[in-house]
Amino acid sequence: MQAPPAEIGMRLEDVDTPALIVDLDALERNIGKMADLAARAGVRLRPHTKTHKCPAIAHRQIAAGAVGQCVQKVGEAEALVAAGVRDVLVSNEVVGESKLRRLARLAREARIALCFDDADQAVIAGRIASEEGVTLGALVEIEVGRRCGIAPGAPAAALAQQIAGTPGLRFSGLQAYHGRAQHLPTHEERRVAIEGAQAAVRETLAALERVGLACDIVGGAGTGTFQFEAGSGLYNELQVGSYAFMDTDYARIEDADGGRFATFEHSLFVLATVMSRPAPDRAVVDAGLKSYSMEKGPPWVHGLPGIEVIGVSDEHGNMQLTSEAPALAIGTKLRLIPGHCDPTINLHDFFVGIRGGRVEEIMPITARGASR
Amino acid sequence: MQAPPAEIGMRLEDVDTPALIVDLDALERNIGKMADLAARAGVRLRPHTKTHKCPAIAHRQIAAGAVGQCVQKVGEAEALVAAGVRDVLVSNEVVGESKLRRLARLAREARIALCFDDADQAVIAGRIASEEGVTLGALVEIEVGRRCGIAPGAPAAALAQQIAGTPGLRFSGLQAYHGRAQHLPTHEERRVAIEGAQAAVRETLAALERVGLACDIVGGAGTGTFQFEAGSGLYNELQVGSYAFMDTDYARIEDADGGRFATFEHSLFVLATVMSRPAPDRAVVDAGLKSYSMEKGPPWVHGLPGIEVIGVSDEHGNMQLTSEAPALAIGTKLRLIPGHCDPTINLHDFFVGIRGGRVEEIMPITARGASR
Repeated sequence: MQAPPAEIGMRLEDVDTPALIVDLDALERNIGKMADLAARAGVRLRPHTKTHKCPAIAHRQIAAGAVGQCVQKVGEAEALVAAGVRDVLVSNEVVGESKLRRLARLAREARIALCFDDADQAVIAGRIASEEGVTLGALVEIEVGRRCGIAPGAPAAALAQQIAGTPGLRFSGLQAYHGRAQHLPTHEERRVAIEGAQAAVRETLAALERVGLACDIVGGAGTGTFQFEAGSGLYNELQVGSYAFMDTDYARIEDADGGRFATFEHSLFVLATVMSRPAPDRAVVDAGLKSYSMEKGPPWVHGLPGIEVIGVSDEHGNMQLTSEAPALAIGTKLRLIPGHCDPTINLHDFFVGIRGGRVEEIMPITARGASR
Repeated sequence: MQAPPAEIGMRLEDVDTPALIVDLDALERNIGKMADLAARAGVRLRPHTKTHKCPAIAHRQIAAGAVGQCVQKVGEAEALVAAGVRDVLVSNEVVGESKLRRLARLAREARIALCFDDADQAVIAGRIASEEGVTLGALVEIEVGRRCGIAPGAPAAALAQQIAGTPGLRFSGLQAYHGRAQHLPTHEERRVAIEGAQAAVRETLAALERVGLACDIVGGAGTGTFQFEAGSGLYNELQVGSYAFMDTDYARIEDADGGRFATFEHSLFVLATVMSRPAPDRAVVDAGLKSYSMEKGPPWVHGLPGIEVIGVSDEHGNMQLTSEAPALAIGTKLRLIPGHCDPTINLHDFFVGIRGGRVEEIMPITARGASR
């Protein structure tokens, strides 16, 4: 782990670069808005640690009303439980004896659940949980977006019945997350995709009812689609993550009003320094694709006109300037909005929390790299 | 930092996933081949730490004949000097008093040089080096590939003269790296691009001769173009990095014989586990874009037919299987060849070094995240 790029009390412009900056006011407004939206829809909120990787932010979300956290990886669950989070759902399958045993041991200190889409894996997990003297919550993941998941309806209900009869496991509901739907560009495409997911959930709930099983959790949803799941009357937990930060990919998708995604604010920035001015119409910053991920395109420059990131290499961002661009002396610091928040955060060891132009908090990204 | 995914002596198939695996035999053959190529061309080899971020690999390269290492960032230089490397060139501009002061302090223990493309920055660096009681080597970076760098010829020579007269700095030569040229798809395109860089170097060397300055270092080159720089009669140090590992992007570029890049072997893999088999023709692995970078496309599956990575999300790799694919039970481990080695390595905390099917060495990626 590297040394933090800032000290408490420092001015934003004195933070060393590249640094991952979070606007604490915007972050807290985003967290509060999503908590309100979930409360008004009458559904529980279980935000996703895969986005922030940071117990300090998980605690803020829980303080605002979230019931706990989702994770994708056992290592993320370990980071949360070590920091006192007491309700963690692995919204993913967990394969392999060593990982299942680590997860089972966490269940001595916290309420832990995970997902299954395969009968043999449920047998293995039940055995390990029993050996460790714990009970793991077990959700059946149904396939709604061509990734993991068992077929909805009767196959899912059969797996649920098997789980319900497996010592060490407690059948806890359904996982029905449609990942690809989050980034579909239009409101209508996202609505239709989640309508399909809802049909799969409805069919599976009916099949479960026929075998006498009820769901504690019907979980899914992300920042792109949560309004559909929240209003479905089927889902009761939202697993949103990006809403806390936003990114250019979410900014580009259209909301119902036809404009840009408008509900949440950009709170996350990569602070970068102009390190070269090779030509009057070009500037190079000291942050490249080891400071922000590029699979959703280059970052946007925040708050300044006439600057476009036109090329990104490992350690450099190459910027084209128009006549509207401000004077950009070497040493000038810029805020970049990343294309995709989750993998960008996973590159950094710290969030530098800024309020009123000063560093208020340095939050370790404890689960950075916790991919196992 | 996360716990290592393996223990010494463990079989490859028992390594936890996702894990960054390096085939030590292939790595050592690559390191030896490049050392031989440089020696035969009569040029020095100064491999790039930005690729491996790992002092243990730097030491292997130096033991094979390299004169030292290149880095892009002060934090990488700190990791090397702390591990005993005594000759480090920052092949990049360094902006900001705190970074320059950290770098100057390293010069008490090691030979340190950095690049300049701006007169004011040379003044600042000279002042800080003098305050710290050290002399920093100073290269003039000339623009050869539309990134950083001052114009070749007279402007570069004027900056060199200024540096030569600046206490705290020692004029040490030219930096002329053409980054974009490395990945041009055909041999001929790469040859022409480096011909352009050579013309800029030649013009600048002539301008330097007119003002009575000689170059200790004329540096540049990468894995895609090094044969052109090595044979130029102008460059005397090669700054190659990827050759130690290779990736799909380098595998795709054509070599002189029209085939795939043939000189170096793939030694780097992301080990991943099949975690879901949602359909007979699909499998999902537990490694996504937090385990390998995606800006050069999805990874290839190594050594097995009929498997294509068709979709990648944060923690999942979605694979399409043809009838040629082997049985892929849940739990099967696969080796993925990343699209781009440098940013993939920067996601991981350890290389797991494999020889003869067993874990021989676990190498900490000490400079992972050292972006400042």
